[in-house]
Amino acid sequence: MPGLIERYREYLPVTEQTPLLSLHEGNTPLIPAPKLSRHLGVDLYLKYEGLNPTGSFKDRGMVMAVAKALEDGADTIICASTGNTSAAAAAYAARAGLKCIVLIPDGNIALGKLAQALAYGARIVAIDGNFDAALRLVRQISAEHPIALVNSVNPYRLQGQKTGAFEIVDELGQAPDLLAIPVGNAGNISAYWMGFREYQQAGKSSSLPRMWGFQAEGAAPFVRNAIVDEPQTLATAIRIGNPASADLARAAVRESGGLFDMASDEEIMHAYNLVAQEGVFCEPASATPVAGLLKLHAAGKLAPGQTVVAVLTGNGLKDPDAALRAVEAPQAVEASMERVLESIL
Amino acid sequence: MPGLIERYREYLPVTEQTPLLSLHEGNTPLIPAPKLSRHLGVDLYLKYEGLNPTGSFKDRGMVMAVAKALEDGADTIICASTGNTSAAAAAYAARAGLKCIVLIPDGNIALGKLAQALAYGARIVAIDGNFDAALRLVRQISAEHPIALVNSVNPYRLQGQKTGAFEIVDELGQAPDLLAIPVGNAGNISAYWMGFREYQQAGKSSSLPRMWGFQAEGAAPFVRNAIVDEPQTLATAIRIGNPASADLARAAVRESGGLFDMASDEEIMHAYNLVAQEGVFCEPASATPVAGLLKLHAAGKLAPGQTVVAVLTGNGLKDPDAALRAVEAPQAVEASMERVLESIL
Repeated sequence: MPGLIERYREYLPVTEQTPLLSLHEGNTPLIPAPKLSRHLGVDLYLKYEGLNPTGSFKDRGMVMAVAKALEDGADTIICASTGNTSAAAAAYAARAGLKCIVLIPDGNIALGKLAQALAYGARIVAIDGNFDAALRLVRQISAEHPIALVNSVNPYRLQGQKTGAFEIVDELGQAPDLLAIPVGNAGNISAYWMGFREYQQAGKSSSLPRMWGFQAEGAAPFVRNAIVDEPQTLATAIRIGNPASADLARAAVRESGGLFDMASDEEIMHAYNLVAQEGVFCEPASATPVAGLLKLHAAGKLAPGQTVVAVLTGNGLKDPDAALRAVEAPQAVEASMERVLESIL
Repeated sequence: MPGLIERYREYLPVTEQTPLLSLHEGNTPLIPAPKLSRHLGVDLYLKYEGLNPTGSFKDRGMVMAVAKALEDGADTIICASTGNTSAAAAAYAARAGLKCIVLIPDGNIALGKLAQALAYGARIVAIDGNFDAALRLVRQISAEHPIALVNSVNPYRLQGQKTGAFEIVDELGQAPDLLAIPVGNAGNISAYWMGFREYQQAGKSSSLPRMWGFQAEGAAPFVRNAIVDEPQTLATAIRIGNPASADLARAAVRESGGLFDMASDEEIMHAYNLVAQEGVFCEPASATPVAGLLKLHAAGKLAPGQTVVAVLTGNGLKDPDAALRAVEAPQAVEASMERVLESIL
């Protein structure tokens, strides 16, 4: 299967000069979830974006952003990030032979989250300030120097991300009735809606899904209709209080007849375990739409018989501590068959 | 793309009763490595097995082993493992609705390595003994109880793993000239050789590759022609001193006109960084064949112009500490454009 730029070039802002950059992103599995489907009374599929090259949906947008930076003659890209964005930026920069600079806030640096960016050879600068300060700086640097900004303000990011919707329609033969998706910075729900609409206009699907966006209770600016100054949730990938793509996301929900809702960290971790019981290991943030579906089902608000796709945005290996927190460490037993059988049967 | 059992059923020990179990394993990308190819003077491709559902090649064999356990009416599977095998066993057991028991040696338990198995709901028992003791116990338990053993002594494991060779031939249109692969327990090199031979017999390829198996210097029983009692290497996935599939692996190398060689941990980590510069993040063990190719090229033993495939057996996210050990933590700088530019330019 070719990469996204080649596969979907007629739907992307691609010219003859755009390099066919690829790490075989996209083409991620749409996995039926029989146990959850029985419980919810719907046909639930999990779009497992954790099998992208760097383990998250960010690769879809980054391949476009970096290809366009190459086309424009850049030799360096820059972003502010502490997580999945930096991994994707660093991987595609390495592939393309570009330098990659990542600005991270100092203090409370989760060094493990940066392992990928470091391995791919990104230059990482910790600044004495918070994420907003880091983002301000990279915008300023890219405005005044020939360095391409690949944070989500780069419009090519959403263009690439919309291909997730294309793949769902290509596989199901039409749009699902309902798309459930985590909402953090709100770019992905906006990109999926753009993708579903464009594919409908191209005659690939006769219908559009309703868009259900789910946030964590401690980081739910859409549900609370207010910026959250200090967002808190263990679903770190959606711990965002002031989403960059807020207007587009609200339009997606309004135009599709959808909704925003939220789940508690406890509900999210319960859903995380249920998703794992389908054989799929995702980050906590990715379990948020499943938590939301469970909550709305319990409230009698999920009509039965629908085809529902939940987008699992990242691989569970991105945050193994989440799995370890959820369980107790095994206790040692004597190495005899009797003792082992006692402990397992 | 359907799972392996459906896609390759005519080449697998599958009956009408075998369930089409799948987590969309296989169909992993074969990624050209242009920078390494230029350096080595060959056409090098990376078979990136880290994009299997649980992040390693183990999924190919485990889907077969668990499907056959289901077909045989088992309700529980068991294995001894501290790493990738336990993740794969737990995932497919969860998918299939089977119980999964994992025995691990006590002391020096890398809890992070078990995060996946725990998330998938496996029952983990730490025994007061080493890995050999754990393996003896699971063999004894499976012999005396209706519990299916899914360690690599289960013959269905190699059957599933041989599909990696099928995919390479399907994509290249023929077998490569050379297959370079990490060797730990030696099952995978044996399985690939079986796959290449079966596909040649089926007329899918007119040629066979030479099989080059690479070990870590501190765990190189084939190169040293002696069991290694206390294997040591940071490439933990191949830290094995007494390989289970030794005879099959020796036959693969002999019959194909191949070789065994080894690389130091330093050479492995150098190769790990070069693979990341192609945009691909793998476990240290996966970089071993690339380290071996670099070493043999430097010694004038890699004929130019060949098509070479290196099998990258696991995802780098399995062992993020390896990336962190290889670099220094970033130092914080003042949040001003001047200071940031100073530090990056």
